[in-house]
This record gives sequence, structure tokens and C-alpha cells, in this order.
Amino acid sequence: MHRVQVPELAERMVLGPQDTRHLQVLRLRVGECVQVFDGRGAQGVGRLTELEPGRAVLERDHQAQASARGAETPQPVTLAVALLKGDKLADVVRAATELGAARIQLLVTAHAEAREIGAQKLVRLRRIASEAARQSERSVTPEVVEPVRLMECDWQGTLLVAHPGAQARITDFLSWEAPLTVLSGPEGGLSEAEVAWLTERGAQAVTLGPRILRAETAPLALLGAIAAQGQ
Amino acid sequence: MHRVQVPELAERMVLGPQDTRHLQVLRLRVGECVQVFDGRGAQGVGRLTELEPGRAVLERDHQAQASARGAETPQPVTLAVALLKGDKLADVVRAATELGAARIQLLVTAHAEAREIGAQKLVRLRRIASEAARQSERSVTPEVVEPVRLMECDWQGTLLVAHPGAQARITDFLSWEAPLTVLSGPEGGLSEAEVAWLTERGAQAVTLGPRILRAETAPLALLGAIAAQGQ
Repeated sequence: MHRVQVPELAERMVLGPQDTRHLQVLRLRVGECVQVFDGRGAQGVGRLTELEPGRAVLERDHQAQASARGAETPQPVTLAVALLKGDKLADVVRAATELGAARIQLLVTAHAEAREIGAQKLVRLRRIASEAARQSERSVTPEVVEPVRLMECDWQGTLLVAHPGAQARITDFLSWEAPLTVLSGPEGGLSEAEVAWLTERGAQAVTLGPRILRAETAPLALLGAIAAQGQ
Repeated sequence: MHRVQVPELAERMVLGPQDTRHLQVLRLRVGECVQVFDGRGAQGVGRLTELEPGRAVLERDHQAQASARGAETPQPVTLAVALLKGDKLADVVRAATELGAARIQLLVTAHAEAREIGAQKLVRLRRIASEAARQSERSVTPEVVEPVRLMECDWQGTLLVAHPGAQARITDFLSWEAPLTVLSGPEGGLSEAEVAWLTERGAQAVTLGPRILRAETAPLALLGAIAAQGQ
């Protein structure tokens, strides 16, 4: 379902010329549904009821919303996670899927425990994600993406990095105006160069408390904190 | 270290007659340190510098605070968790220890996957907690407590129960005025009678998002949400 920003979520939403053009570019027709969001965290489903040059009307469709929402977060959440040794990633992928990750980006990091992942292992992780999505009644199976070097990775929206000693809280950044990526490093932690590279590009370091977490626990704490906000 | 409530955390805290009497009851002497907290979530360490009938002065001791704090939550957090089949509890105990649980109370629930735990298995869980406490640099090893029936369990302070469909958020209840217990059920969920019993006794149902979580993931999401607040 396409996503269309509206000035305000209402039972009846009248769009001006720019937004109407956007609907036309999407080749939407009267009767079709789109996800509507106000950019401030509220979202729903709107059904297109009028469409003419320069003007369109969407009406809230609460029934479609209930089924469209499924169990997904308001904006997609990517988990960017360092490659880990042995079978640890299987547990991470399974729980991350339950906890709402829409995408799992594997990372090669400076202090990595592992620098590559076999094709068979990647296939297995994808099967685990698919099975976990089914069991947790999600409508989306997170894509498990082949590893990239951390300092070559790319993201849209907000990037939050679990970092020992950080003061900011993940809940300070959950306005859902943009996609979200949460990143956690390998057992040895991120290198100073990696942290500097990320923060220069606008990443926010967030706390996971004063204890030392294993590399396979940190991603679940990050995603658990989001889920515990009701998302 | 004793805990003393103060009107407000400050570099110099002057206590009136009631609070001074409390210090005297604790037999504190000038030069000794106490934990001070304001009942609204802020806490620190104060050193007693003046003590006379009806009046006492505490001065913040930031150095003592850093070492006293260790990696513990402001109030002890108990994880009350249903018995689970197989080796699932081992993973829960390990991660719960990293995430700051001070006590792990095992529960026998109506829809339990398991109704008892062998002595050897309990010993093993305790060993796992001890090892995880060491690795996560905690000063406290959580006690793993033999199972009790949920409807006979007892708790001090606030009880938060992970429950599908709940609207309240765990972060709404983290004022740290009292010990905290977070409870999560077995794979089949809590029974209606159990939920009613808990809520009649003041338990608060909290959300972990709209997805179905496995019984071994929910406790980590609860504790992860607390850790992500910096505790």
C-alpha cells in the first residue's frame, strides 16, 4: 500500500494540488486505499473518494486500517547488526522478527567476530525470519541483507547506535517521522573510527543501561524498548 | 548502604526534624554515606556532614555515588517468569542478568509448559546467573528462586505484567519509588483467572507491541525497555 502524507489525520482529508499530483503519479484510482500519515507519528488508511486535477479527497477507512496495520511499526525499523560467531545470529534474527524489525542488515565491523557469512547460513537466517514472521502474526517478513562494511553502510531516516556510556534514550527518538535504523556492534564493540564515522553522519548514540551486554542481547534490548512503547 | 528520601537532590541537602530522626534511628554518624533519592526517579549518594537534634546536613558525594551505583537499577527489579520447556529458561536467565534483574522468580502458571523444575536444572540456572553477572560486570548476582504458583506469588512495590492488548507502557511506571517486578507468562499466555487475580492486587498490564512474542522473548523486551531508559 502506498504512503501519502496528509496535513492532519481526519475522517475526511482534502488534498491540494501538490499532494493530488503525487496521487496521480502513483496512478491511484477512486476507491483505492493508501496509508496516510501526518509525519508526527499518527497514521491510518484513507480511501480515495474524489480525484480531479488539483484536488483529491481521502476518507478514513478504519476497517482497512485494522487489517493493513497488521503488526507493523509506524515506519519501518531496520536492525543493523554486526556478524556474530556461531549460531548467535539465528537467535537475533528470530527475536528481532518478533519484535518488529522490517529489515535486518548484517554488518562487517572492525572488531568483528566474523567477517563473512556463508550462502547456506544466509539462506537459513532468511528461513528463520520467515518462520518467525508467521508465528508472530506479522504481515511483513524482514529481509535479511548480505553483510556490508559498517563504514560503507547507508541508511534512511534516523540511526540510533547502542553505545556504552551514551546518555540519550531510544525513546527520545521515536517520533516516527522517518524510517528508523538501530545498530549494535560485535562482542568487542565498535571501533573509535566507526563511532566517529557514524556520529559525523548524524547517528545518535543511545544507552542500554550501565551493564555490559553480550552482542546478541543488545539488539533485542533496542527492539524491545521500541515494542514496549506499543509499536 | 541505607536509603534516605530527600526533598530534592542537591549538592547540600538540609533535613528537618522528621528526616533527621530517621537518620538517628539508622544510627548514622557524621562522615557516613547514604543513598539519597527524591522519590521522583533521581538518586545519588550523600555524606552526612552535620547531625544535631532536629537538623542534619548531607552533601552529595559523586565519587561514592559512582562506586556505590555499580551497574544496579535504582530499585531492585524482579523478573517473574513462567517455567518454560527445555533449555529456554537458561537463555532467559542469562540475558535477564545482563539486563539488570536483581531476582528471578520462577512461576507455575495455569497454561504452563512445565510444572516443576529439577534440582539440577535449578542449580544450573543459578550458575548461569552467576556467570552472566560476572561477565556483565554486575555487583549483584540475581537470585533464581524456586517456582511458586502464580496465584500464590507475592511482590513488593510495583508489578507490571506483559499482556497482549494492554495500552499502558512500562516507561509510564519507572519512577523508581519502590521495587519493581515484571512478569511474563508461558507460551499459552496467562489464564483469565490469573490476569484477574493480578489486576485485583494492583498489577498493571503493559504492552509489548502488537505482535505475538515467544515466552522467552517477552521477558527480554520488558527488561530491555528498562535498560534502554539508562537503568
